[in-house]
Amino acid sequence: MRVLITGAGGMLGRRLAARIAADGLGGRPVERLWRHDIVPPDGEGEALGGDLGDRAEAARLGALPADVVFHLGAVVSGEAEADFAKGYRVNLDGTRALFEAVAARGGARVVFASTLAVFGAPFPDTIPEDFAPRPLTSYGTQKLIGELLLSDLSRREMLDGVAVRLPTVCVRPGRPNRAASGFFSGIIREPLRGERALLPVPRETVHPLVSPDAAVGFLLHAAEMDTAPLGARRALSMPALSVSVGEMIAALERAGGDPRLIEERPDPVIAGIVAGWARAVEARRALELGFRADPDFDSIVAAHQAESAG
Amino acid sequence: MRVLITGAGGMLGRRLAARIAADGLGGRPVERLWRHDIVPPDGEGEALGGDLGDRAEAARLGALPADVVFHLGAVVSGEAEADFAKGYRVNLDGTRALFEAVAARGGARVVFASTLAVFGAPFPDTIPEDFAPRPLTSYGTQKLIGELLLSDLSRREMLDGVAVRLPTVCVRPGRPNRAASGFFSGIIREPLRGERALLPVPRETVHPLVSPDAAVGFLLHAAEMDTAPLGARRALSMPALSVSVGEMIAALERAGGDPRLIEERPDPVIAGIVAGWARAVEARRALELGFRADPDFDSIVAAHQAESAG
Repeated sequence: MRVLITGAGGMLGRRLAARIAADGLGGRPVERLWRHDIVPPDGEGEALGGDLGDRAEAARLGALPADVVFHLGAVVSGEAEADFAKGYRVNLDGTRALFEAVAARGGARVVFASTLAVFGAPFPDTIPEDFAPRPLTSYGTQKLIGELLLSDLSRREMLDGVAVRLPTVCVRPGRPNRAASGFFSGIIREPLRGERALLPVPRETVHPLVSPDAAVGFLLHAAEMDTAPLGARRALSMPALSVSVGEMIAALERAGGDPRLIEERPDPVIAGIVAGWARAVEARRALELGFRADPDFDSIVAAHQAESAG
Repeated sequence: MRVLITGAGGMLGRRLAARIAADGLGGRPVERLWRHDIVPPDGEGEALGGDLGDRAEAARLGALPADVVFHLGAVVSGEAEADFAKGYRVNLDGTRALFEAVAARGGARVVFASTLAVFGAPFPDTIPEDFAPRPLTSYGTQKLIGELLLSDLSRREMLDGVAVRLPTVCVRPGRPNRAASGFFSGIIREPLRGERALLPVPRETVHPLVSPDAAVGFLLHAAEMDTAPLGARRALSMPALSVSVGEMIAALERAGGDPRLIEERPDPVIAGIVAGWARAVEARRALELGFRADPDFDSIVAAHQAESAG
């Protein structure tokens, strides 16, 4: 089994690579594990560095003889909103060049990290399975276009794609990134290590979340599953835990964190972006296909604590 | 008022140009009317020829100082399915280069001819307003991506777009084109002039139709309307007349055509494409915004007869 991971230097990419290096994939050992990011990432396997927004680079990656391609590399939401050209260059042009290069060499299983941010308001409190995605960010637009390209290439049997619409990953370890959703992790992570955190949105804000390990589980399941039941519908909304910021803070307190370290500082730009995101999403198809969310937010906090201590 | 029409050599493009040359646009006279197609089209105004699939050509067009851009140029559905690279080059790359060039010069009203073929089966008999488009052709995929680009650029106030999801235009005058939907016109047009026509699908097939004049009316209304109520949702499913092939043939007979000239010759490729298309679509938003369909199929046939005689 040969595997390529783009965005392998990111938080999910590192975890995914470590899991695959340790356990193989689909019950088979992994002989080659190419891990690509803007700078060659540390870790197992062969590290590759380059700009996914360079079509030639993306095409070179797609031409590698991988049986499974995990395409996680992207410009995150805040940056794609701030830099129009860069977002389209990396998230659309790079993605397309990668997919087309995989197709050109005869295809492979391609697992594409998409996002629940393909949905944009107005929408019902829980977004039904067949609801039209109408993104309200350039990032969501670019990811949705990636889903459409993947579905069309899969329908034409040029590759075998699964687009996994990820909820916001929380608790992200380490330092904040430039994603507009970063504070969802910050308000748990920072107080647990005795540091202050900013809360830019109201406590009533409800948002779908997934732990890092469950998100990696989605990606692995998408690589291993039988895709025949998908037909031409290759984008799947992942199951998520929809909790309010207030409930998150209550769980923080139960886990021993000090909620007074969270400073409410409304940010209209962040609040505007978050208000356009889904609060809860029906994930009937993904559940039927065996994708599983976290049981509750306390277990997400506990897993983060165990990891930070370990 | 300065106007650019791409695909101006096509059936809708010619009608649109003639209407604008005669009546102006939005109650204002038109000083410049650029009409572009792969070869310079005949008619009023300034004719331009070139390949929309050449990004530089598309960018030159977008840079013309038009107040309104009607983007009708495209590779049609049958050809986009047969030639993967050409379809994406013209319908995605050309469209994107055109839109981005309009944005780069400060924006304009952009009316984009999209299609109800953005929807793909399975779907309910009447597709609700908020139903997820999941195209089952490369053409539908490319048009949906164009809608998403137009919506994102409009949301960012880089241009002011309206994507008009057209039903199948019927009765198209003249000769057959390479669209998979061409037979819907053929089974009316050919028998009315005493010629044979092939029917590749069952008579029970129901399909949403619009007359050429009503389709031009949609485009003109999209150019003239107030776009403020659209917000970031720039794609509108147009109202259509959903009739069965059997009902169409009955109308043909009422209009004096000989239905025995229609030869049923099932074509699994065409039937497969058509089976993936919407049968009827809710168009509540478009109706509220003033878009109007034809009253019945007999009036569509009568308009075609009047035009053919005139």
